[in-house]
Amino acid sequence: MPELRLVGLCGSLRKDSWNHKLMLAAAESFGPAQFAEGNLRLPLFDEDLEKQGMPQAVTELKELIQSADAVVIACPEYNKAPPGVLKNALDWLSRGGAPWKDKPVAIVSAAAGRAGGERTQFALRLMMVAFRPHLLQGPEVLIASPAKVFDQDGRLSDETAVELLQQLMDGLREAALTRQ
Amino acid sequence: MPELRLVGLCGSLRKDSWNHKLMLAAAESFGPAQFAEGNLRLPLFDEDLEKQGMPQAVTELKELIQSADAVVIACPEYNKAPPGVLKNALDWLSRGGAPWKDKPVAIVSAAAGRAGGERTQFALRLMMVAFRPHLLQGPEVLIASPAKVFDQDGRLSDETAVELLQQLMDGLREAALTRQ
Amino acid sequence: MPELRLVGLCGSLRKDSWNHKLMLAAAESFGPAQFAEGNLRLPLFDEDLEKQGMPQAVTELKELIQSADAVVIACPEYNKAPPGVLKNALDWLSRGGAPWKDKPVAIVSAAAGRAGGERTQFALRLMMVAFRPHLLQGPEVLIASPAKVFDQDGRLSDETAVELLQQLMDGLREAALTRQ
Amino acid sequence: MPELRLVGLCGSLRKDSWNHKLMLAAAESFGPAQFAEGNLRLPLFDEDLEKQGMPQAVTELKELIQSADAVVIACPEYNKAPPGVLKNALDWLSRGGAPWKDKPVAIVSAAAGRAGGERTQFALRLMMVAFRPHLLQGPEVLIASPAKVFDQDGRLSDETAVELLQQLMDGLREAALTRQ
Repeated sequence: MPELRLVGLCGSLRKDSWNHKLMLAAAESFGPAQFAEGNLRLPLFDEDLEKQGMPQAVTELKELIQSADAVVIACPEYNKAPPGVLKNALDWLSRGGAPWKDKPVAIVSAAAGRAGGERTQFALRLMMVAFRPHLLQGPEVLIASPAKVFDQDGRLSDETAVELLQQLMDGLREAALTRQ
Repeated sequence: MPELRLVGLCGSLRKDSWNHKLMLAAAESFGPAQFAEGNLRLPLFDEDLEKQGMPQAVTELKELIQSADAVVIACPEYNKAPPGVLKNALDWLSRGGAPWKDKPVAIVSAAAGRAGGERTQFALRLMMVAFRPHLLQGPEVLIASPAKVFDQDGRLSDETAVELLQQLMDGLREAALTRQ
Repeated sequence: MPELRLVGLCGSLRKDSWNHKLMLAAAESFGPAQFAEGNLRLPLFDEDLEKQGMPQAVTELKELIQSADAVVIACPEYNKAPPGVLKNALDWLSRGGAPWKDKPVAIVSAAAGRAGGERTQFALRLMMVAFRPHLLQGPEVLIASPAKVFDQDGRLSDETAVELLQQLMDGLREAALTRQ
Repeated sequence: MPELRLVGLCGSLRKDSWNHKLMLAAAESFGPAQFAEGNLRLPLFDEDLEKQGMPQAVTELKELIQSADAVVIACPEYNKAPPGVLKNALDWLSRGGAPWKDKPVAIVSAAAGRAGGERTQFALRLMMVAFRPHLLQGPEVLIASPAKVFDQDGRLSDETAVELLQQLMDGLREAALTRQ
């Protein structure tokens, strides 16, 4: 059986972002796999630009997702919803082809405050419907007050959080194996 | 009484976009005003970039909105939600200061298909809550099948659409005058 | 292989409701199965009442769903969201036990106007997350202007609608068979 | 100036519900007013029943809301959304007439867990759009872990919660006075 390929997307571009750490923790929980992160530094979506030819970075992101057995999205909460950065990538990905139709996708989020991104996850869930992926229903991994939940080395150290993430990623792995 | 200042934002960057035409139609329905369009061609939101200093285009957009008596947002529907381009602007606008707190804001949308952007308007409505603007509740202006509703010169020609838009913009004007 | 059991829920209590007809059309598209409709005429959810013992009608509905291989929900749009009648049933169903965890569930809707229930489906999708069912992602079956889409005998006659419904119910059947 | 009339609605029927306590705390924060609670123990919405004549309890609720200068809704979170009980009342209220068009309405919620009802408030906000009330945008009053926030006499004792509620109710009062 070939090694599973997992792709991670992170909606925050900040180098030290909690969501980036969470994406890496998710990849580790997923278990043995070839992991790659998608690059969301894409041009702003613009149909006039698209007519001149699909930007290279968009094509690469689409191919990366197409090649994946499973995808995990780490999604911050900005203004109670996913970042424009992530939505902009989704807007490009929806053009021509369906890179993750029926593909197992899990959502995780870290957000300052006590709710851990409840609203951003709900909004992202709806943004994904049009792609018709196999979107895992749960458990929801919502990391509140991330500064207390990651240790100094940037590793998820809160026991409950670790356990929930493991459950979610076990489900993602199982879905990826079933599909293979 | 000084002339009212109306600012328009359009979530589509395409030059000939229906939403751009709709934004202009809304401005015309609003009546006598100094109209300016906000520029949404901003860098992708990135806190590392922000630390180096707020991008000039962001500062200009924020000042434009601060100076406005009312704002109209023309919002396409991409993947059942507002474009990343527009959300990216909101993400920048939420940093430092509250440019449209209590300010009258109206949403309009044009979208291919028959629903005219029902879902994108609902999603945008929720994204705006954190800014606490005076967001008009209705009537909802949802332009379906835009190719049939605009004439060859790009003017809104459908009678019902024109009337609904007028009602919404009358409400926006009234709210702007009350606030002045 | 035992016969599949399909359960239908209809959010409208009106005897001649379009959603009831749509639920029956969905059952027919599903193919050979033992079909039963759940009764949503439940008491209003009230924890004080619950303490006196689970109402018999709630227990029956829960057992019906537990016994099902698949569920189809026909969901009207009242005030842009699922009816209180349906939500009230969900509120009871969430008490003690998880009757449709991982169970294939499909949503369909009929609604006056042109959008066919886009918003009610999105809202219902989010209400179902806590139950963690296997909620089909699509295709979305949104019956607009139902008076034009059903014939005089109350049968779905619009070709596109019939086809989309068939695709959705084929997906539901396949999911039910996989699970069996 | 006549005394202001405030109407409260509570989505939980449980006698000792946290949301009921919160509704009463909101009424107290509102200041001098004639306060009345709407009765949500209505029949399940059913158009066949409606044809036989509007149920008396529905007419009374509608008249109560029509007579109010402001309305506060205390909304629990069941399955991440407003209770069916409350939605059922909204479904009846939307039939014939617009009892709270342009009327100031505030939403508050108490919910077990740490988020205090973030999702139910967002869902309710969207359910209210069709009524076109003057829905206050904030501050959001989201009471998490209510057992820690109310004292033994059922009074809101947490300082931050009290302050946020006061801000929201001050805004509601101001909107009611402006409208009068």
